Amino acid sequence: LKRGKVAEIKELLLYLHPADIAELLVDIQNGSQKALFKLMDYEKAAEVLDELEPEIQIDLIDSLAEKEKAEILEKMSVDEIIDLLQELPESKVEKLLKKLPMDELEKVKGLLLLSRDSAGGIMTTDYVYIPEDTPVPEAINMVRKFGREAETIYYLYIVDRDHHLVGVLSLRELISARRDMIVKDIMHKKVVSVHVDDDQEDAARAIEKYSLLAIPVVDSDQRLMGIITVDDALDVLREETTEDIHKLAGITAEEDIILTGSPLKAAQKRLPWLLICLFGDLIAGSVIKGFESTLETVIALAFFIPVLMATGGNVGTQSLALAVRGLATGEITAGNFVSYIFQEAKAGLIVGIICGAILTIIALAWQGNPNLGLVVGAAMGVALTLAALIGMIIPMILNALKIDPAVASGPFITTVVDITTLMIYFSLATCFFNLV
Amino acid sequence: LKRGKVAEIKELLLYLHPADIAELLVDIQNGSQKALFKLMDYEKAAEVLDELEPEIQIDLIDSLAEKEKAEILEKMSVDEIIDLLQELPESKVEKLLKKLPMDELEKVKGLLLLSRDSAGGIMTTDYVYIPEDTPVPEAINMVRKFGREAETIYYLYIVDRDHHLVGVLSLRELISARRDMIVKDIMHKKVVSVHVDDDQEDAARAIEKYSLLAIPVVDSDQRLMGIITVDDALDVLREETTEDIHKLAGITAEEDIILTGSPLKAAQKRLPWLLICLFGDLIAGSVIKGFESTLETVIALAFFIPVLMATGGNVGTQSLALAVRGLATGEITAGNFVSYIFQEAKAGLIVGIICGAILTIIALAWQGNPNLGLVVGAAMGVALTLAALIGMIIPMILNALKIDPAVASGPFITTVVDITTLMIYFSLATCFFNLV
Repeated sequence: LKRGKVAEIKELLLYLHPADIAELLVDIQNGSQKALFKLMDYEKAAEVLDELEPEIQIDLIDSLAEKEKAEILEKMSVDEIIDLLQELPESKVEKLLKKLPMDELEKVKGLLLLSRDSAGGIMTTDYVYIPEDTPVPEAINMVRKFGREAETIYYLYIVDRDHHLVGVLSLRELISARRDMIVKDIMHKKVVSVHVDDDQEDAARAIEKYSLLAIPVVDSDQRLMGIITVDDALDVLREETTEDIHKLAGITAEEDIILTGSPLKAAQKRLPWLLICLFGDLIAGSVIKGFESTLETVIALAFFIPVLMATGGNVGTQSLALAVRGLATGEITAGNFVSYIFQEAKAGLIVGIICGAILTIIALAWQGNPNLGLVVGAAMGVALTLAALIGMIIPMILNALKIDPAVASGPFITTVVDITTLMIYFSLATCFFNLV
Repeated sequence: LKRGKVAEIKELLLYLHPADIAELLVDIQNGSQKALFKLMDYEKAAEVLDELEPEIQIDLIDSLAEKEKAEILEKMSVDEIIDLLQELPESKVEKLLKKLPMDELEKVKGLLLLSRDSAGGIMTTDYVYIPEDTPVPEAINMVRKFGREAETIYYLYIVDRDHHLVGVLSLRELISARRDMIVKDIMHKKVVSVHVDDDQEDAARAIEKYSLLAIPVVDSDQRLMGIITVDDALDVLREETTEDIHKLAGITAEEDIILTGSPLKAAQKRLPWLLICLFGDLIAGSVIKGFESTLETVIALAFFIPVLMATGGNVGTQSLALAVRGLATGEITAGNFVSYIFQEAKAGLIVGIICGAILTIIALAWQGNPNLGLVVGAAMGVALTLAALIGMIIPMILNALKIDPAVASGPFITTVVDITTLMIYFSLATCFFNLV
């Protein structure tokens, strides 16, 4: 960011899309970041802020003079201001709220009371509503007039006198409607909506399922509170996917980005499952200790501990991934879960037989001990079938208990499978070598 | 599906959303599925088919009489027909194509040549384009006229005489434009577009990034070929997420759903990584064999093999999940990957020190052998730091080599970490117990 080039950069910024500028800001260092940010006019700056994560928003807004802050806040969309305020400490919230114009302040205050993860927490109040007895030409005028501020004008929500949601109309339908109708007669009375307290993920999935551009949010009396647009739904689904992948790997999910922040914090998010599994695998170790005399007699049994543990864990993790994703996308339902379990058992058995046979041959060739080969192969076969079942059934049980199945992380399943596998292995070995 | 209730069910179907009917069809058994499907009129049936997976589409269409097939195909959207045809064997494709009306046939034939995973493979040709010198009132008329068939009328693409994409206009802007303008003067000249050969995931990410409702698809000469709408982008992102989660668990991703299909096929998709890792963990086993004399002297070393292997694998998988997801969402870039590696190393070190210390104490308490406690704890600390680095760096290398980082599946990382961990553990033990 050289001094002489400021004019050039200013022009470039005019031309760039806010999403690209946001990406650029994340990539460059702190000093230049703020300098660059200040080169934009308020409108553009507000648009760029809309694209950024709350932590960076706070950082950039803090760097502004008080007057600039107020100007930019006024231009930001209500739902983004809410996101921002939810990240700030109490004292700063008060200060920022004072800068908002009166009408926005009212909106924001109402929204701030809603839970962050609910549909209400991500909805916007910038939508177009039309009273049910409005004639078509007047409705078109209302769209022209109020549409400028709205996040979408393509869905028009029809309300009665008490602001109850009674219908919906697409702009497409409105402009091709006969001019002598009133909206009540042409609207769709069946509206897919979500409750303000519903989970934001449910709202996003509804938008996905019904291929909507926006979904209305209502309270318990069916009063229209706001809307959630498809771009916000995309953000929610992306965040939830990241959370699911992290949870599957045994990382505690938090509202915000995991990758940034201090290593100490990062470690904190990873330790809970690590420690649970550490103790779990000490139990697996004590299984070995329980069969110490078997191991002392046939020390070669130890050489196959890694391959049995690892393959068992891998099969369990595969089944877990199938189950968790199947439950998340709604492919596994209350109606068909039994057939998935059976199929998984069969797949586990096939995988077990193949891996078991291969391992028997290798063990025989490597150690030249037929008994050992049979024990190792048989243990593999049984262990893999059980691993597939454990990986499929545990997330299903969690789901039935209304617990997010993704918390049954890979590490947890692996630990359960480890204990099972070693018990099978050493029990079989003890029997086979007549050591009982 | 009782005979007497057909009329009732028919009425219910009229009232239900196609997405809900599709869900219902997936859940009920085969016989009733087809019976239910036939109760709908062609338009509704086509809408429901649009929501279903290709396998089920084929199944349902096959159950129809020839005349019905043609009627329904005509009503389905072009991009869905393409999806369907791409699943069918050559001979059936020919038969179905003959049923299409001439104009649709042309469109479909052109699209069929495009790669399935490209932007061209998921685009639709049902869009509204407007020649650049059209006056505003006439443009509004064109939207009214051609809009009925289009997938979206909210973005209007402006083309020149040779169908080059020269601009875009939202319906919102068009209806609020002055009536004496021509579209060329009010359109945006900067249009975000994707190339017909681009990956469909890139197209979906562009829609997500710029919060679009649709993105135009162009050829190398910038000629407009079609559009991809946000609802199709959502489908792509959901499928890609499923693929990523499956790949991470070491399941070979294929175009279609993993959960359905025969158990033999399911086993096939899971075996490649399982077998690679099986051989890898035999190497881990031969590390133990290499230190056989150490193990024979201190048999208690075996009790800690599970906890070291499992915790190492867990840390490696956590780092892998962070890396793969960070790369997929674009959070990790060429500019900042070094700082992520450093942060990961620090996080691994912290986790390693904490787990190592805990394990030292437990080993001491359990086995009452201070040397053993120190060896186990030190091995844990070193192994976890390395595991974090391996899990972060390997996917980054793959990404740099333009290989999807998600193929560095959890099982693969775990195997590499297993071998490393056991080598560290037994080397340390051999030194500590002065057994060299």
